[in-house]
Amino acid sequence: MSDEQFMKEAIRLAIEGVKAGHGGPFGAVIVKDGEIIGRGQNRVIIDNDPTAHAEMVAIREACRRLGHFQLESCVVYASAEPCPMCLGALYWARPSRIVFGSGREDAASISFDDAFIYRELDHHHSQRHIPTEQIMREEALKAFQAWVEKEDKTRY
Amino acid sequence: MSDEQFMKEAIRLAIEGVKAGHGGPFGAVIVKDGEIIGRGQNRVIIDNDPTAHAEMVAIREACRRLGHFQLESCVVYASAEPCPMCLGALYWARPSRIVFGSGREDAASISFDDAFIYRELDHHHSQRHIPTEQIMREEALKAFQAWVEKEDKTRY
Repeated sequence: MSDEQFMKEAIRLAIEGVKAGHGGPFGAVIVKDGEIIGRGQNRVIIDNDPTAHAEMVAIREACRRLGHFQLESCVVYASAEPCPMCLGALYWARPSRIVFGSGREDAASISFDDAFIYRELDHHHSQRHIPTEQIMREEALKAFQAWVEKEDKTRY
Repeated sequence: MSDEQFMKEAIRLAIEGVKAGHGGPFGAVIVKDGEIIGRGQNRVIIDNDPTAHAEMVAIREACRRLGHFQLESCVVYASAEPCPMCLGALYWARPSRIVFGSGREDAASISFDDAFIYRELDHHHSQRHIPTEQIMREEALKAFQAWVEKEDKTRY
């Protein structure tokens, strides 16, 4: 199957999800060795879960299927440009390639304001719309110390 | 309870998670009206889920508890500065405040390279380390059109 056929499936999932009332108009598929190993639709509304974007749902399904927390040699097809949350998740999952359909400006035009979040991430935490502060850094570093000292850890 | 006490709980969860082998050294709690309604530890390793960061786990638990996809009037305490994925998720969940302990430079010093992902998000998609391309925009916009035309939709 071609890029176009996998993208078509992502778009089909997006439209199906809208019609079913699962959430916003977004779909994604994850492909390894030419086979779809993860499918996702936005499920924010039906699951009451703000993290249930199509890419996240597909990543979680694909990783479950692979039994691994990385998407090595996988290609991710998303019907729309990943928002910062999903793009961050993709960077942790490390697929080999990402293909998307509509862009962040298109999403903004129907009131999904990914572009706003992209801008917020660039600001220092003291200057964001959601008030954010740092406290107890020294105490918090004890958790990192516990990690450094753990001998049998799995790195990721 | 004070900010310090809630942060202490987030740090305790982080250390407990490392010792149990659940994942990286990160913990989070979500508080509403002075009560903890969501707790999270990093579970990337134990769940084979790259999206299972402490904040994500806590957001999902709190939203389940509230029966809603938003964290209105909630405060999020994270033992470490949220990565782009988690910060993106927090922007979708919209708590009233975010408090964190250690910073992204501290995380980079123990090889959790959030800072790299923050930089990548700033690049145009054609210039990222994970090759990314846009195709079939017109076709993909049909999903947005389906959303626009849906009359009984829940906005989020």
